[in-house]
Amino acid sequence: MHLDDYTHDELTALEQEVSARYEAHKAAGLDLDLTRGKPSIEQLDLSSALDETLHGDFHAADGTDVRGYGGLEGIAEARALGAELLGVPADSVLAGGNSSLTLMYQYLMHAVFYGVTGDTPRWRDLDEGPLFICPVPGYDRHFAICEDLGVGMISVPMTGTGPDMDRVEGLIAGNPRIRGMWCVPRYSNPTGETYSDETVHRIAEACGNAAADFRLMWDDAYAVHALAGDPAPLPNIMDACRETNAGDKVILFASTSKITFAGGGVAFLAASETNLDSFKKRMGVFTIGPDKVNQLRHARFLKNLDGIRAHMRRHAASLKPKFDCVQSHLERALSNRGMGEWTAPEGGYFVSFYTRPGLAREVVKLAAGAGVKLTPAGAAYPYGNDPDDMHIRLAPSYPQLEEVDQAMRVFVTCVELAAVRRRLSNA
Amino acid sequence: MHLDDYTHDELTALEQEVSARYEAHKAAGLDLDLTRGKPSIEQLDLSSALDETLHGDFHAADGTDVRGYGGLEGIAEARALGAELLGVPADSVLAGGNSSLTLMYQYLMHAVFYGVTGDTPRWRDLDEGPLFICPVPGYDRHFAICEDLGVGMISVPMTGTGPDMDRVEGLIAGNPRIRGMWCVPRYSNPTGETYSDETVHRIAEACGNAAADFRLMWDDAYAVHALAGDPAPLPNIMDACRETNAGDKVILFASTSKITFAGGGVAFLAASETNLDSFKKRMGVFTIGPDKVNQLRHARFLKNLDGIRAHMRRHAASLKPKFDCVQSHLERALSNRGMGEWTAPEGGYFVSFYTRPGLAREVVKLAAGAGVKLTPAGAAYPYGNDPDDMHIRLAPSYPQLEEVDQAMRVFVTCVELAAVRRRLSNA
Repeated sequence: MHLDDYTHDELTALEQEVSARYEAHKAAGLDLDLTRGKPSIEQLDLSSALDETLHGDFHAADGTDVRGYGGLEGIAEARALGAELLGVPADSVLAGGNSSLTLMYQYLMHAVFYGVTGDTPRWRDLDEGPLFICPVPGYDRHFAICEDLGVGMISVPMTGTGPDMDRVEGLIAGNPRIRGMWCVPRYSNPTGETYSDETVHRIAEACGNAAADFRLMWDDAYAVHALAGDPAPLPNIMDACRETNAGDKVILFASTSKITFAGGGVAFLAASETNLDSFKKRMGVFTIGPDKVNQLRHARFLKNLDGIRAHMRRHAASLKPKFDCVQSHLERALSNRGMGEWTAPEGGYFVSFYTRPGLAREVVKLAAGAGVKLTPAGAAYPYGNDPDDMHIRLAPSYPQLEEVDQAMRVFVTCVELAAVRRRLSNA
Repeated sequence: MHLDDYTHDELTALEQEVSARYEAHKAAGLDLDLTRGKPSIEQLDLSSALDETLHGDFHAADGTDVRGYGGLEGIAEARALGAELLGVPADSVLAGGNSSLTLMYQYLMHAVFYGVTGDTPRWRDLDEGPLFICPVPGYDRHFAICEDLGVGMISVPMTGTGPDMDRVEGLIAGNPRIRGMWCVPRYSNPTGETYSDETVHRIAEACGNAAADFRLMWDDAYAVHALAGDPAPLPNIMDACRETNAGDKVILFASTSKITFAGGGVAFLAASETNLDSFKKRMGVFTIGPDKVNQLRHARFLKNLDGIRAHMRRHAASLKPKFDCVQSHLERALSNRGMGEWTAPEGGYFVSFYTRPGLAREVVKLAAGAGVKLTPAGAAYPYGNDPDDMHIRLAPSYPQLEEVDQAMRVFVTCVELAAVRRRLSNA
């Protein structure tokens, strides 16, 4: 029954029933965690052989001894892997250390404090400072980088097929401070949606119209992370941007953190020659080169895109039952009840749940009270500010299936309880 | 015979003899490289078993699965290794990725753009900008970081027992812009000297008198890199600075790059709690954590300081003949001839050679002409400017012993040739 259709007496009875369920969950003394998009132990085990690929042979295909210093761009076979992941030529790829987040920070640090290329102003010198377009809900760590570097953020809502492009186009046309935009184009964190062809092409158009030193931060973190079958197709952003004379305005990122070892993978940055030349000058100051030994391990272990796809099917087999469990709890408890909406992603690491307005914080608090940790409400918004207090990010990958099941029982109870109590107190 | 004692005719004859030798070297078509302080293949082979330490056991001593995300400070056993290397408590150590250079850059970026702690000004906001004291000759990559971050550099000469402390004290007392100082206290790059007890204590005193946000960048890169026997003793800088109320003014660095794999080691930063707290806030923005898998490999492989010392004796056995070869060529060809001076380090990776004034560039050029690459003259000075054009850094670690022997034959010939020709042209 829809929440709005209950009489006051029925609501009171429902509150008692749900409260009793909530108290029972509380009494069970659970300690469950749905906060972060982390691969499970089972998933990490899929890559244990990564550590056994070298067998004393430390030479890359071109003869480089990977144990030694140097090689700012990474070894050729690691760059080739990144190129396959991102759909770009290998010579536009830098293979780095274990963190694409670090590459993103370093790139934006470069833009803010030095300027994206030798001949553009440092963003920090812009009148009133640079601004970034931030599709919301989005990835909290992207927003933290902007905040740390003094890049202002303007939220633009996600629509189910990517960011609201009318708004994006309006901002780029109307606000001269706009210098960039975050995108997680495939199985976006945290809604799970994949940008439509139209969205990608409109983004490329918008880049064409943006400032010369505008940079699209294209974080294809979930490029191959389908829950079943092949990954969702996505137009090639680098090609699309070249067609709008914006080939220098896109920087792509990916990593193997959710393919092999979360903390011990290889990260990639891809960009035009102009961008790479400028960024490599900065890199040459802060590093002698990445861990090429780990890059060679990855190249030997994953081999190529076919190898990656086969490997990702094993991940999917582990992840899909957990995502199915989330959906089935939500559907069973909350379908057509007016207590919330949610996404049903076909890949990635997250489900977005939207409570009735003003209840997300309350639901997260109730869940914590019953031993289920959720990402803080608001975390998926710049400055932690979800203006409607509706969004909750669910991350079911790390716990075991039974734990996801338990946690979701608690979660839907908390959603019901918050919704019913709010209706009662508003009645 | 001393160069100044030759008659003009004798000089002319000497020039012909040395020229002929130089031409013979040229004709040999050599291709040798003494430019960088890189471990040789033989040294890298000493650590090949590093890649075979885990055997599928990815759990740190405290149960952490090192394959997963997180752990900003590094795993406990890696921090303990860094603590032994640097002589500080493990809880003052961060174990990072593969590059101490990156940690140094990140730390100084933090100081310049954010301020060393929450309550000190950003260095970039200082009137006329921050200045660093740079002992010379020194490490070119340290100077490149300062230049990149807009930190001005003031050279202070090395003396054989560390930097000229009268000058250092004068600068700290007299120039309010001074915000830091680079030090490679043991087997310094490139002179090979180790700071005396007195120097270390005077540095700690100077830190006590320096600005509150002064930071001593103490790069103990060669802490255990003796060419024979135990490493040179060095007073503990952290303890010494605490005694002068300067415990927050020192940041220590080390890495295993010249212990295990040059490009695939583990780097360390150590500092007071106040400094770590502030720096970790920044780190939390740009990384989720270091490669803990590689940290565990290192902890299992090296075990502890005894393990490191035993391992370093094997490095020394490989390095010492090369350093002996350098010394024996220099002594045989150049002793008491007034053509140059040089250091005779007991550890580290370099020998400093000083030509007669104004000849370093010429010698490097002559050597290149005969197929021997040397570090560009001036590289060991801020802005690449050796005011006397005398210093040449010799790095004999990477080539094989016979190659060092060949290269040194060429080098001493080039030194002689440049010196004799200059004498002739001045006569």
